[in-house]
Amino acid sequence: MKSPIIDFLKQLHHELSGLSEGEVATYIPELAKANPEWFGICVVTASGHVYEVGDTDIPFTIQSISKPFVYGLALEDNGLNDVIAKVGVEPSGDAFNSISLEPDTGRPLNPMINAGAIATAGLIQGGIASARKRRILSGFSTFAGRELSIDETVYQSESETGHRNRAIGHMLRNFDILTSDPDPTVELYFQQCSISVTCRDLGVMAATLANRGANPITGKQAVRGEYVANMLSVMSSCGMYDWAGEWIYKVGMPAKSGVAGGVIAVLPGQLGIGVFSPRLDSHGNSVRGIRVCEALSQRLDLHLFNRRGTRDGAVRLIFNGGKVSSRRVRSLEEVALLKEHGSRIVVVQLQGNLTFATTETAVHAVTEEFETLDYLVVDFGHVLSINDTAARLLFELTLSLEAEGKTVVFSHPDRVPLMGRVFRAKLGEKATDVYRTFEDNDPALEYCEDLLLVKKGFTPPVEHTFGLAEFELLDGFSKVELEIFSGSLVEMTYGKGEAIIRAGDEASELFMLSKGRVSVFVGSDASTRRRLATFSPGMIFGEMSLIDRSPRSATIEADSAVQCRILTLASFDQLGDKHPAIKIKLLENLSRGLSRKLRKANLELSVFE
Amino acid sequence: MKSPIIDFLKQLHHELSGLSEGEVATYIPELAKANPEWFGICVVTASGHVYEVGDTDIPFTIQSISKPFVYGLALEDNGLNDVIAKVGVEPSGDAFNSISLEPDTGRPLNPMINAGAIATAGLIQGGIASARKRRILSGFSTFAGRELSIDETVYQSESETGHRNRAIGHMLRNFDILTSDPDPTVELYFQQCSISVTCRDLGVMAATLANRGANPITGKQAVRGEYVANMLSVMSSCGMYDWAGEWIYKVGMPAKSGVAGGVIAVLPGQLGIGVFSPRLDSHGNSVRGIRVCEALSQRLDLHLFNRRGTRDGAVRLIFNGGKVSSRRVRSLEEVALLKEHGSRIVVVQLQGNLTFATTETAVHAVTEEFETLDYLVVDFGHVLSINDTAARLLFELTLSLEAEGKTVVFSHPDRVPLMGRVFRAKLGEKATDVYRTFEDNDPALEYCEDLLLVKKGFTPPVEHTFGLAEFELLDGFSKVELEIFSGSLVEMTYGKGEAIIRAGDEASELFMLSKGRVSVFVGSDASTRRRLATFSPGMIFGEMSLIDRSPRSATIEADSAVQCRILTLASFDQLGDKHPAIKIKLLENLSRGLSRKLRKANLELSVFE
Repeated sequence: MKSPIIDFLKQLHHELSGLSEGEVATYIPELAKANPEWFGICVVTASGHVYEVGDTDIPFTIQSISKPFVYGLALEDNGLNDVIAKVGVEPSGDAFNSISLEPDTGRPLNPMINAGAIATAGLIQGGIASARKRRILSGFSTFAGRELSIDETVYQSESETGHRNRAIGHMLRNFDILTSDPDPTVELYFQQCSISVTCRDLGVMAATLANRGANPITGKQAVRGEYVANMLSVMSSCGMYDWAGEWIYKVGMPAKSGVAGGVIAVLPGQLGIGVFSPRLDSHGNSVRGIRVCEALSQRLDLHLFNRRGTRDGAVRLIFNGGKVSSRRVRSLEEVALLKEHGSRIVVVQLQGNLTFATTETAVHAVTEEFETLDYLVVDFGHVLSINDTAARLLFELTLSLEAEGKTVVFSHPDRVPLMGRVFRAKLGEKATDVYRTFEDNDPALEYCEDLLLVKKGFTPPVEHTFGLAEFELLDGFSKVELEIFSGSLVEMTYGKGEAIIRAGDEASELFMLSKGRVSVFVGSDASTRRRLATFSPGMIFGEMSLIDRSPRSATIEADSAVQCRILTLASFDQLGDKHPAIKIKLLENLSRGLSRKLRKANLELSVFE
Repeated sequence: MKSPIIDFLKQLHHELSGLSEGEVATYIPELAKANPEWFGICVVTASGHVYEVGDTDIPFTIQSISKPFVYGLALEDNGLNDVIAKVGVEPSGDAFNSISLEPDTGRPLNPMINAGAIATAGLIQGGIASARKRRILSGFSTFAGRELSIDETVYQSESETGHRNRAIGHMLRNFDILTSDPDPTVELYFQQCSISVTCRDLGVMAATLANRGANPITGKQAVRGEYVANMLSVMSSCGMYDWAGEWIYKVGMPAKSGVAGGVIAVLPGQLGIGVFSPRLDSHGNSVRGIRVCEALSQRLDLHLFNRRGTRDGAVRLIFNGGKVSSRRVRSLEEVALLKEHGSRIVVVQLQGNLTFATTETAVHAVTEEFETLDYLVVDFGHVLSINDTAARLLFELTLSLEAEGKTVVFSHPDRVPLMGRVFRAKLGEKATDVYRTFEDNDPALEYCEDLLLVKKGFTPPVEHTFGLAEFELLDGFSKVELEIFSGSLVEMTYGKGEAIIRAGDEASELFMLSKGRVSVFVGSDASTRRRLATFSPGMIFGEMSLIDRSPRSATIEADSAVQCRILTLASFDQLGDKHPAIKIKLLENLSRGLSRKLRKANLELSVFE
């Protein structure tokens, strides 16, 4: 099928390929050899989908686009303060090759001008030159998701003609911005500029920045996430040299260009753009590259600042325990209590990336519901990530609720390991007193229901073997009828963990649970296994297959030592011949049970649909 | 309940209230009167939640914070090109009161320096001075969500001492940037700076910018959404004067300060911040204001560029017609066909704000499923907004699917009126040939099911009055039994639209539908009314209340002229006495029907849960 996104990019490529303004860089012969008509566009989403048209596989040198990436590696190698001490972050308002050092300290104004980039290269750790080169190549390769290498011919030419940069190196040495022989660092700078990439590589590298430093295709972290904002900040304020204001105004994405004709632009959290077209304007930026970024920003509405507010933030759904209950099948008395008081249990289902702004909506919703809730289940099942702020916000919310005597329960805590770390860091061993975790909503709800039921005066029946008269299935049976019916039953016992029914088996009996508990499961392995129901004494199970004669659809296991009375299919069928009145009562009671389950399922569907 | 967000702000307020660096502005006596200890912080989310601590109700003058807002109004009054012709967008690298005009054109470098702000004020339309003043006051009032006014004393002082700004006015007149007498415009500029606001107002105004120009509390549009990115762009590149690089690096939010001690910062799509503290640093920025922004950015992780990718974008859920079906209750033959082929119907549920990046995930998911789908339902029910790009992307996707012979259906089109406009703009009258819309998923699914069934060879039965033998309820009945049973039934007819059962009524009968169609509805009015089921001839309805003797839970209406056979509760109860074998068969068939409905409901729950 035609992708509408590819179609759009093809159209744009076609439109702009007529543009023949600008000149290919000629300051070294290798760059002058570029075909001025080469033109590639590649858009890569932060989820790793790649859209590319035109010449996206032709290798060229990365040149100045290396600067923000080496800056990121330098931050990782030295930490923020040591980098800031050597290189500033203010735009220079000058061209790329201006020296722009602070008059007193000699600190280059920012890492995007050559002086700042050479100072930054000086911060790359590794000791000997070859190790520092490997550090850069390996970092860039993780960004691109493939092994990159240096174009040695370009590097030799850059090195042979790079007198101005060598002068800058010595100037930086003079100010102790570089603290040892500047030559190896200047060579390293020539090497970083000579790394060979394709337009597709640029797209992926940009998308890795959009994805907070994690390559969205390989999943590998190319630079520590905390430094990505710094890299994008210097691109934003200084990336397009003396044109930063107009760029942010018109395009609204941090960007960087290189003299070989490459351009990257990044929309944080969303996508990265790589463009390649060797003809440059007087600022040294690719003419078509700039136009592609402008057109993409405008036509795809990518401007960073053109954002609508999301009213619902991280809240996917809020529901209460009066409408949705756990898979524990409750007695009639319990059902009545939960129907009356179940709304005191509130489940807040969160989704997406939890940050301050998205989590605030959830915290606000809970504080709004504060008066009407006693039990809060926070469901992290649809959460993609959580940052420290969101975790602390939920921690504080939990403490506040706890202080008011409310119960807080987390479901799917495996999606947000940071939550546990924040609680343990703040409370140590006492963390587990403050909240409980359950692997999903079902046991979380069951836990809250159990607490609520006790609070509302429910006393669980003393554990005993249920007599026939206690079964709802036999409601309205006379003593004589009970005795007759009892003759059709077979007693069975099962050990804890034993399978009573297996999915796929032919159905040949209905089970009356006299003692112990059983649970119904679907899913063949641990990851897909899901509880459908848990039954207590006095309840029946396995009746549906008996009624519609279809194979067992789920597996039923004994949660504890279990006693059952079993009505076989044969006895069930014969019952009508000898004791029609008994069979009628039995069927009426069976239908009533099914009807109740169907009403419950429909109510839950109305919540989730 | 204590809000953890208020607690956090109180803590921050407490920490920073010890900070006594800086000096209150003294260039006019009114500003010098400010209590240097005043300190307020207000955070307002793009969804309109207000969090405020400290002195958030004390009035002060907005001063330079007026500049981006007047710039927005000027854009609205003149359009982008006419504004750009008079005022640039490049940072000056100079202090706020630098004149910074382009040497040849006299165009001020940007609208955040005084020269640019006066040129911008000159662009406010309205003719006479009072009308232009009203235009600004009314625009600002919509931003703040309350009637604002000018502090006349401050204005008088500003006017009396504003010689430098008057000089700038004449300089702008000299270059024809101002095209008439500059004095009224300079006065207008003094007036805009003298508008009286509170810290809370600043928070709301900032949140209005975060919400693309719509005040999140009143819902009113304060400036056309398309200009908000321009306003934020100039704040980002020039808002903090000669400090833009460091500000974006450390704080990462567009911001603006005023000499009365106010600061605003905006996180687009998420929140706005207002701070008030009169002590200023040497740049003229509020000392505590700056520190609050830094601390909020760092501790709440608000930096614009520190974003994680969202893997699932706009896709809330994808499911297929093999697991979830419409509320039309199908015959056994239809059920079997839908079970086998239903996965050819794919429902993509979208959510949130549809932009290029979020919608791309949905388009990608559909192209991935392309081979296995014949019918696509796009459900806009959870969508908050759609931009032009997203609408065009979905338009192109629809055309591509249509070209491949697939059927595309939209549900909840009322949430995305732009979709219809894009289709009509591109296709005119033919738009409705390309896609169908339905108010929700249920009729959309039914439409697709009907097409699929026909494609798979299903022939709907010829319309006729169903005989008893055709009812599944009477499966296995002999001729004699049918005749006997028929004696218990009463014939009834209903006109189209007539209510057959009303929610809340006592249940006294089971209905066998011989002819026509009926539908089950819950919800008392049009907005809450929802179809639960539609039944065709040969089916029964109303059986659940008969079984569990509970009142009717829904209303059932005749979709067409309807004929029913009715089994009353009395006949049902008596049937067992006289004809137990018939009653047993009836109950077995009833239970089978309930069992099937329960299995279907459980399957659907497993999809949505």
